[in-house]
This record gives sequence, C-alpha cells and structure tokens, in this order.
Amino acid sequence: MLLTIPTNSPFSLHTLPYGVFRPGAGEPARVGVAVGDWVLDLAALAAGGVFAGPGLRGGEVFARPALNDFMALGRAAWDEARAVVQRLLAETLTSMRPVAPPLSRTLHRRDEVELLLPAAVGDYTDFYSSREHATNVGAMFRGPEAALLPNWLHLPVGYHGRAGTLLPTEADVVRPRGQILPPGATAPVFGPTRELDFELEVGFFVGPGNRHGEPIPAGAAADHIFGLVLVNDWSARDIQRWEYRPLGPFLSKSFATSISPWVVPLAALEPFRCHGPAQDPLPLPYLRAAGPWAFDIHLEATLQSAAMAEAGLPPLTLTRTNFRHLYWNMAQQLAHQTSNGCAVRPGDLLASGTISGPTPDALGCLLELTWGGARPIPLPTGETRRYLEDGDRLTLAGWSQGEGYRVGFGELTALVRPALE
Amino acid sequence: MLLTIPTNSPFSLHTLPYGVFRPGAGEPARVGVAVGDWVLDLAALAAGGVFAGPGLRGGEVFARPALNDFMALGRAAWDEARAVVQRLLAETLTSMRPVAPPLSRTLHRRDEVELLLPAAVGDYTDFYSSREHATNVGAMFRGPEAALLPNWLHLPVGYHGRAGTLLPTEADVVRPRGQILPPGATAPVFGPTRELDFELEVGFFVGPGNRHGEPIPAGAAADHIFGLVLVNDWSARDIQRWEYRPLGPFLSKSFATSISPWVVPLAALEPFRCHGPAQDPLPLPYLRAAGPWAFDIHLEATLQSAAMAEAGLPPLTLTRTNFRHLYWNMAQQLAHQTSNGCAVRPGDLLASGTISGPTPDALGCLLELTWGGARPIPLPTGETRRYLEDGDRLTLAGWSQGEGYRVGFGELTALVRPALE
Repeated sequence: MLLTIPTNSPFSLHTLPYGVFRPGAGEPARVGVAVGDWVLDLAALAAGGVFAGPGLRGGEVFARPALNDFMALGRAAWDEARAVVQRLLAETLTSMRPVAPPLSRTLHRRDEVELLLPAAVGDYTDFYSSREHATNVGAMFRGPEAALLPNWLHLPVGYHGRAGTLLPTEADVVRPRGQILPPGATAPVFGPTRELDFELEVGFFVGPGNRHGEPIPAGAAADHIFGLVLVNDWSARDIQRWEYRPLGPFLSKSFATSISPWVVPLAALEPFRCHGPAQDPLPLPYLRAAGPWAFDIHLEATLQSAAMAEAGLPPLTLTRTNFRHLYWNMAQQLAHQTSNGCAVRPGDLLASGTISGPTPDALGCLLELTWGGARPIPLPTGETRRYLEDGDRLTLAGWSQGEGYRVGFGELTALVRPALE
Repeated sequence: MLLTIPTNSPFSLHTLPYGVFRPGAGEPARVGVAVGDWVLDLAALAAGGVFAGPGLRGGEVFARPALNDFMALGRAAWDEARAVVQRLLAETLTSMRPVAPPLSRTLHRRDEVELLLPAAVGDYTDFYSSREHATNVGAMFRGPEAALLPNWLHLPVGYHGRAGTLLPTEADVVRPRGQILPPGATAPVFGPTRELDFELEVGFFVGPGNRHGEPIPAGAAADHIFGLVLVNDWSARDIQRWEYRPLGPFLSKSFATSISPWVVPLAALEPFRCHGPAQDPLPLPYLRAAGPWAFDIHLEATLQSAAMAEAGLPPLTLTRTNFRHLYWNMAQQLAHQTSNGCAVRPGDLLASGTISGPTPDALGCLLELTWGGARPIPLPTGETRRYLEDGDRLTLAGWSQGEGYRVGFGELTALVRPALE
C-alpha cells in the first residue's frame, strides 16, 4: 500500500488527532491517530519502541481504552508523541514508496475500525458562550427585553451536563419523552418531544487538572487544554421550556450528547489562532487571557431525511458558522470553571454552547434557524423541517483551512430514531 | 475484646452501613461495615470464605476501593451480604464472649481507620424536592408572587452537580471566590463569598443502572436504590444569586459537596417507611409509585465556631428536620431522572435538595434560618451568624429511631477554611 492524504482530508499531517478504536470486534480498545483514510495504532507503535522519550516512557498510555492517562501527562509528552508520529509519517509520505513493516502493521483502514468515545469523561460542562445564540434563545424564551440577562456580559454562563450519556459518532439518538406544557394549557402532558433539536458546538478536553481549591489562571489555560472535538448537544425544546426554571436545563439535554471521535490537539490549531469579538465591558482580571484566544474553525451542520436518503439526495447544509464568533473563549471558560477552586480532572469536557454567528445563515440550531418553528426549512424532497423528524440524519463537520491542507475534525453523525413504545 | 453496641449508636445491628476505608496509612482501601464503634473489614471476611452464596460469589467486590461493583450486583447480592454480616455479628453479640478469631482479625476501631468516599460517582444530580425550601428560596430570590414556579408541583426539579468535587467527611471546605454583584451595584466584583451556606440533604446511590434509552418505572425504583447518605451541598448565596439565570447554579455549588462515609442500605430503612405529604395536583402516571415512599429519618445540623471550640462549648443545634417532609420522593426522582431515557450507572448519586420542614426551627440552610441574613443567629459566645465564618465547624447527623435501637448515618462534618490568597 501507498500512504497518501487527499488534499481535502480533515486528517492531514498537520492534524494528527487522537482517538480510541478497536481494529476488530472483541479486540482490546487502544489509542490511534487518524491520517488520511487510515488509523495509526499507537499501542502497536509503542510496542515497537518508538516512544522512548522522557515524557512518554514507552507509551504504555496508548494501550488503554481511553485517552485520559495520555491527557494527564501534559504538554511535554503531547509534544513528544506528536513529533514522533509526524516524523514517521512524513518519512513514509515523502519516500513515495509503499509502507513497509513495521509501520504497515500499525495502519488500519479508517472505515474498518470501530470508533469509541475518546475519553472517560468525569464531568461535562456546557457553556453558553455565543452572544448571538444567547440573545436569540433569550428573546424566544423570555422576550426581547430580557434576552441577554445582566450577568451574561460579565461571565461565561455555563452548567453541568450529564457525563454518562455522552455518545460516540454513529450512535443513534432516540427521541426522548418528557413533560411538555402544550400551548395554552395549564397542566403538562407526558410524551415524545415534538421539538427535537441539535446544537452545533465545539468542546475541549482537560489535560492535567488542578488541585482542588486552586484556580487555573486564564494565562495558564494552554497547559491544561489537550484538544478539541465537535459536540452535538441534542435538545428537546418543549421539555426545556417547561423544566428549565429555576435550576436550568436537565432532562431536555441529558438523554444524549454526541461527540466526535477524533480529538484535535490544541497544537494543531495554533496556526489558526485569531482574535475573537471585542469584549465590552472589559472582563474582570481573572478572565483576562493574554493574546488572541479565538480559533478560525469553519463549522457546518447537514441534514438528510429518510426520504432524501432513499431518493439518493445528498445532505442539505443547514448552517455554516465559525468557532471564532464565540464571545467567551476557552481560556476564559477554564479560568471561570476553576475560579472558585473547583477541581477539573484529565478527560473533563468543557463545551462551548451553540455556536451561532452574526448572519442568519450562521445559526447553530433549529430553534434559531426556524425561529422557534415559525420559519420551516424546505428540503429538496418537498418536505419541511421545524425540528428533527424520526429518520433524519444530522451531521456536524468542522475544519481549519491551511494552504493546501486542512486541520479537521471529520464528521460527527447520528440518526434520529423514534421514541420507544 | 467484647463487642457491644451502645443503644444510642447510629450503627446498630439494624443499620449495617457500607463504607470504604483504609485500616492504616498506605494500606489498600476496601469495603467495610460500621457496627457500634467498630468497622468490620468485608474484604478480610471474604478472604475467609464467608460470602460463598450465588450473588456474591466469594465477595471479591469487597476488596475494591469503591462500592460501585457491589452496588452493581443488585438486591439479591445485597440481601446475601446483609444476612451473612448480621448473622456473624448477632452470634458474637449474643454469646457475650470476647470476639474470637477469625472475626477479631477483621474488626478495626472506627476512630482509627481512614474513611474515604464510598463510591466513584459518575453523575451527581441534586433535586429541589422540599416544597418549603423551594418556596422560601423562591420568595427571597424572586419575590413571594413567583416563589414556587409553575412547573414545581408537576415534576421534581433538579440539576446536575459536579461529581469531581464530592468530598468525604472531615475534609475541610475552603471559602470560594467568585463573581458577586454588591447590593445596589451595576457591575460585579470578584472576591471571597460573604454568604457561605450549608444545605442539609439526603442522597441515594444507584445500584444497577438502566440501559440508555429505557426509563426506570417508579414502581421498580427499589431494585435500583442501593442506599442513602447525608449530603451537605455547600452553597455561596451571593455567587448563586448573580450567576444562576438562566442555566442554574454552577460555581456557587461546584467548589465542594460533602457526603457522609456510611451508606445506609435501603433495607435498613424499611421499618421507617411512611407516607409523605399529599401531592396535589396528582402527578402524571410515570411519577406514581405504589405505596408510601417517605422515610422517617430525623435530621439535624450543628455549628461550632472557633471561639466556641476554644471555650469548650458544645456545638449549637441550628435545625431539626425530617426526611419525611420531602414533597417529591426517591422513586419519583429516579423515575423522572430516567424518564427521557437518560442512563444511570451504579454509584450515581441523586440528592434530595435542602430538606426544610413546615416549622421555623426545621429549615435546612442558613439562607432560610436567617431569612437571607436578616435574622442573625446568636451563638453562646455572644457571636452571631448570618452565614458561615472561617473556623466554623458544620456537622450534619441523621437517624431513624427504633424501639431501643437506631438506624443512623453517623456524622458528616467539615471545617470552613479561609479563602486562599
């Protein structure tokens, strides 16, 4: 075989994202790196002795079913692993010769492996860091005069989501049931949500944590951020509207949250670092991070209904937005999360909240795209969508565009299944 | 030694609560049962071959540093373990003879062992199930007309807390810093909370979980509830008031949540099962559990300031309340939590929320006891308390009173330390 990387592949030599996979059914899960259409088995490479540096000490951490232990090692070990893998692959690519053993024995076709959750997530936080999203949702839930609450411009509002219902890509999402207050009714009913929505988000995994009680300063955030994934924070809007006061969303979110399988290291995204929106009022000192902390990552969501799939029609792009639009950045989120002394642990996930941009085609969920269902989206089959229907396939994708290469996340996809009887 | 159990001991032969302990520094953590002033080492007993039944299959689960695997085995195994331990101890107690080997080698003085968190908690939910508490807090935060929001009488309101900052008893609590909006100000400041509060709660641990997507019916709750602990949901009221809208409490709670070390099995509390408050309106069918689901558990909180301790003054009882006052019960909480298909896992913790009763001396937190600080509590030293001060020791205790014996939780205690510089 000859190792090549298509120029539009999300997994270029500049990406080298980490994931957890099984080469075949029943085989032990281990850590791999995606490159082009291939997965490089780091556990097998480690057994071959290539990770001999002081940070990785042999690379035992790659023979585990989750990235947590590798995440915990910190930046020096991450740099070491990235350099080794990059060098090995670059040699092979530039040689233009077929991949030889031992490397050939450590490569698997990406479409033939089983992808698992990349980490065991101890705590999962979801922020609400897009000003456009918070304004739009607030206007719909509370009216335009109370859209952005007084605290929003002073702190990155967030809440704890459910770690135990994080799902890998390709896992179906079952339409949840719940309490819903029908329009005009005074008492709720219990039944399947009629307003199933997606939320286009990006999350980051914590590397080394802090000691309980000791905040992580915004300026130290880069040492604690391992890498990023796409997040789909599935939401049942009718359940949410009825349940969320005063303690926040709960069952409207906890039925499922999907995350993409490949964790893109922060190092891979450095070339795409840029300035985010101006912050006015100036955040309090503990929320000030030096330098730019936005990242230019193109994001999109597509929908393919069952009828579209049957007719052979390609997915319809619902939205195109960008991670750089976020008002509150990752350094601020991490500093805020730990500002009270709260401990974060390796593998904790902090997600952005829905990423909406300033234009009407850059909204990160159907609630906003259809303005609460008032403006249904036409599909090429003649169907329309206010919210997701059973049989719909929703897919998120994201990448940063370099000159002649991409640093991408690949796809995060799921099919909506009917509510259980 | 002669094994005796004082009549006011929380750990009678009817309690037999499970915990995780180290007999000495550096020794492996294992599962034990508290009885009187002793801890019975179940890992050592298992090595002696006493857990030979089909449910426990030797009792390997007791040689682990958390109860999760035992919790996962389910009711038949729990019944088996309880019967074996009860028989062994009853024989010894009734013999009136000194404890002989091998039992004597499996008993440790309770005040000489190190108590750890009883389980590795995957997800921690905190409910808001006391009508009196929700009404009082709502009145203070939003005014009396919006005290109890429209959803409250229809569903057990709850939210996800932070699993990674659960603390064992005796672990100090550091006063958190955070954003606070001073009275009359338009912009927040960052600093140590001035309104540090406790919340007197009871939580339950999930035993066997459900399959993701499949709700646990209220009627099946007893098979999924392993046992109960005391919970102190430390709260910073000034941080909470500013941050909590619209996504709920976050940093005002995530700095620490303390739980008691001994998990009292549901079986031990069966004699104290009783009817809770009448529910009107009638809950939706998925929230109806047959039979009574309240439990008569006396609860109290005491405070000892540094000055009181120095003067040799005993702790002051701040409140006496009862678990039976809760409007929403554990079966309803578990059914609600899983009604959308959300998965629960062995070791997940679901807490009640602050347990306030109908009388002014039965309120479960200082926010209510001092009515937002307006009615300071006098201490015997001449000091007063609106909220907790550095150096205060806050202790929760709880028990059910049988005829001549108690089924109790023991104490959950912590010292408040000053904010870090």
